Amino acid sequence: MTKKTTIYDIAEKLGITAATVSRALNGNPKISEATRQLVSDTAKEMNYEQNKLALALKSGKSYNVGVIVPRIDSNFFASVIRGIEEELYPKGYHVIICQTHDQKSLEIENINSLLNAQVDGILMSISNSGPEENQSFDRLIKKNVPLIFFDRKKEIEGVSSVTIDDFKGGYQATQHLIDQGCRRIAHLSNNRKIEIFKNRYLGYKQAIIDNGLEFDESLVIETTSRVAEGSKSTKVLLDMETPPDAIFSSSDFVALGAIQEIKSRGLKIPEDICVVGFANEPFTRFMELSITSVDQSPVEMGRIAAQVFMEEVNKSKKIKTQKQVVLTPELMIRKSSLKSEVIAH
Amino acid sequence: MTKKTTIYDIAEKLGITAATVSRALNGNPKISEATRQLVSDTAKEMNYEQNKLALALKSGKSYNVGVIVPRIDSNFFASVIRGIEEELYPKGYHVIICQTHDQKSLEIENINSLLNAQVDGILMSISNSGPEENQSFDRLIKKNVPLIFFDRKKEIEGVSSVTIDDFKGGYQATQHLIDQGCRRIAHLSNNRKIEIFKNRYLGYKQAIIDNGLEFDESLVIETTSRVAEGSKSTKVLLDMETPPDAIFSSSDFVALGAIQEIKSRGLKIPEDICVVGFANEPFTRFMELSITSVDQSPVEMGRIAAQVFMEEVNKSKKIKTQKQVVLTPELMIRKSSLKSEVIAH
Repeated sequence: MTKKTTIYDIAEKLGITAATVSRALNGNPKISEATRQLVSDTAKEMNYEQNKLALALKSGKSYNVGVIVPRIDSNFFASVIRGIEEELYPKGYHVIICQTHDQKSLEIENINSLLNAQVDGILMSISNSGPEENQSFDRLIKKNVPLIFFDRKKEIEGVSSVTIDDFKGGYQATQHLIDQGCRRIAHLSNNRKIEIFKNRYLGYKQAIIDNGLEFDESLVIETTSRVAEGSKSTKVLLDMETPPDAIFSSSDFVALGAIQEIKSRGLKIPEDICVVGFANEPFTRFMELSITSVDQSPVEMGRIAAQVFMEEVNKSKKIKTQKQVVLTPELMIRKSSLKSEVIAH
Repeated sequence: MTKKTTIYDIAEKLGITAATVSRALNGNPKISEATRQLVSDTAKEMNYEQNKLALALKSGKSYNVGVIVPRIDSNFFASVIRGIEEELYPKGYHVIICQTHDQKSLEIENINSLLNAQVDGILMSISNSGPEENQSFDRLIKKNVPLIFFDRKKEIEGVSSVTIDDFKGGYQATQHLIDQGCRRIAHLSNNRKIEIFKNRYLGYKQAIIDNGLEFDESLVIETTSRVAEGSKSTKVLLDMETPPDAIFSSSDFVALGAIQEIKSRGLKIPEDICVVGFANEPFTRFMELSITSVDQSPVEMGRIAAQVFMEEVNKSKKIKTQKQVVLTPELMIRKSSLKSEVIAH
């Protein structure tokens, strides 16, 4: 068996101190990029294998970052994760992912598992069920492990977040439906204790009021982001004495369920009823009846969340800052809501 | 500050030894289920917080399991992961996920990151690019960390796998197209160094030969599993002097790209050309022109992979076994390939 390469071997080869090698390998900001690169290349060349666990225990850094999302099988969350990875991989970080299936208990267990796996930070979108407690987040904050929320966030002092302007997204979608001549617009919402769903709802409501239309709370139904739930809620809407002439859904999956139910009754989209979703999932444009939706620039959201993490992980632990980045949504108008060829703003 | 609960406090309360409490909390099989439950409930009641990292270092168990997939934004892989979670969560295990984006270098780094995070095992589907080396797997095997392949596997002695019968899937799909009257069937394949793609191709080829049709290698194109790649390859096929009358794709995403290209030329599906995909992604049935595809029962695949992991993690490290589970695929016949109403076998 050959002798394992140590940092002393690398130091000797390069004529620098072992401490410098160690600092360079651990990404200490005091080391110049050129030196870091040289040490890194030499280490690779000499087959130096860093004992990352020992390193983690010593430096408190594992170069693993945890990402927690409600579900991975959504293009939106997968794209945010792609953005995070694109930003962090070149900086030597690895991304490990957990999903909560929107269950608070799993969210808590995920946080604990990731802490036990010694992650350097957690970037997450919270689940939309369960009690309003912050215990699990407290543990992170006490441990000084950076926590950054994206999309679905919670107001916690000192915790940064990257979101889109959901109020504006809801407002734009509803204004577009009104511009298409719709007057009785229903809203398929989700748990409005979650800010993003509350804000989409408030944007929808404000657009209705601003246009002098009657706001009818009975046209607002809370669902979960599943196709079957969309069909179920749409049944209720279509069975009303005066059914809606448009549906704005806070989820593309729910919008898809709505479309299935509308079609099954022989109603025409967009002639009889317009449908708008939210998130711009790829299937919304793949469908023959393409679905109007609100784009949330998820890759950019992920990249920015990762940048905020890098700022936090590199800053002195004594400085507490809180950053709130808000991105602007973009309405993608497609067949499911386009009655006339005149494209509204 | 209140004193932290220790295993001695729990032992005292229950009138059992601290060793029994420790064994119960660590899932030692010598402890009865009733005792385990009692200890667990009492520990919860007394707010006992297990130091999982210390436990991991001591017992060598972290109760974290790593799952590595090429991509998370595919319903197939997301469903396998769901199956793994459904099986492992009730047993106290947590699932942390990494994606390779089909890059060998990321696959190696993922394995190392998960090992550094002290996972008890890795369940994975290999990436389809990069050199044919087993180094990263060797590290796992040397460390005695259970490794189980699902779907995309590699032949490594002592490593178990759960796959579907891809040859049969390819054969069934092609036979169905022949039964629909297709005579010049193209195949959009993927890297055939990966067994699943090789076997789907071999199944396709065998069906053509068994039916006395001419096998034409120029009708086989290798792509990657992306929509745009499907369109690009289909361009090549449709520009041939004698274009195919059917396309069997080893990926639903590629099939979708093929459909987009075919439609853009004003050709009719299935009248002019039939299309069959593979994996039964949900969008294949959501489309107005629903896509025929091969179902791989991914949730079941995940559950079985997790069961194999549990067997391996609980067995004596001296016993080397290798289990190969092969599931049967199911052809889901839909509009994209159904010329006649007579449903073939």
